[in-house]
Amino acid sequence: MSAMSDETPVLDAIRFTPDGLVPAIAQQHDTGEVLMMAWMTRETIAETLQTGHVCYWSRSRGKPWRKGETSGQVQTLKALRVDCDGDTLLLLVNQVGVACHTGRRTCFYREAGDGGALTEILAPEADPEALYGHKAP
Amino acid sequence: MSAMSDETPVLDAIRFTPDGLVPAIAQQHDTGEVLMMAWMTRETIAETLQTGHVCYWSRSRGKPWRKGETSGQVQTLKALRVDCDGDTLLLLVNQVGVACHTGRRTCFYREAGDGGALTEILAPEADPEALYGHKAP
Repeated sequence: MSAMSDETPVLDAIRFTPDGLVPAIAQQHDTGEVLMMAWMTRETIAETLQTGHVCYWSRSRGKPWRKGETSGQVQTLKALRVDCDGDTLLLLVNQVGVACHTGRRTCFYREAGDGGALTEILAPEADPEALYGHKAP
Repeated sequence: MSAMSDETPVLDAIRFTPDGLVPAIAQQHDTGEVLMMAWMTRETIAETLQTGHVCYWSRSRGKPWRKGETSGQVQTLKALRVDCDGDTLLLLVNQVGVACHTGRRTCFYREAGDGGALTEILAPEADPEALYGHKAP
């Protein structure tokens, strides 16, 4: 893809938080599944546009989070969209395997039912221990 | 739907920010379109579950934002999902008309193209002036 300097118009349209972050929703480009929401910085957006592989910012680890680097469950970028007020991104991706660290296709696997109970609506497809070498929390 | 006290299990599974907020993604339940992202509080989630009409929290106005109250473009709740770490919601909704204050179906109508330019990929379906009685910013 294009060089970093060329990404400036997109990057300048984004309104980052005071911490320099912007939320990014990942959606499977062909099925429409909403896979996850994570955070990006100006630098990880530029890297994502350059490489075509989605790189988030890990708030807990305080460093770039190249999705799938450990697990192999990478996200290839198909399109990057910016919302009307520039404070949220929508990434259309091709998700290899599962998006969720629990081994499920999507992180949104719990649904509110009648009476306010949360029900799991999706089973793991992959063993988190196999993906990461340890059990998911 | 059920009474507020019954919603406690769902509400207790959510990890709110220090400001008491949680991001909520709205997705059209049948087409899979990602319509918008906004913020909710414990109280607006409880109200949404009770009434079946989506109520966000307006950070700019500092009060509940009953989606469509002014414009008529309401969102009926079909399902509420919570992600793996409890810090993001996915609302499956039925969106009447358009979700975006610019008159477009979705807020994500700008896409990054080659060279980093942002291109509008969706035209307005409704006149913002007719929806709100004034031009959208």
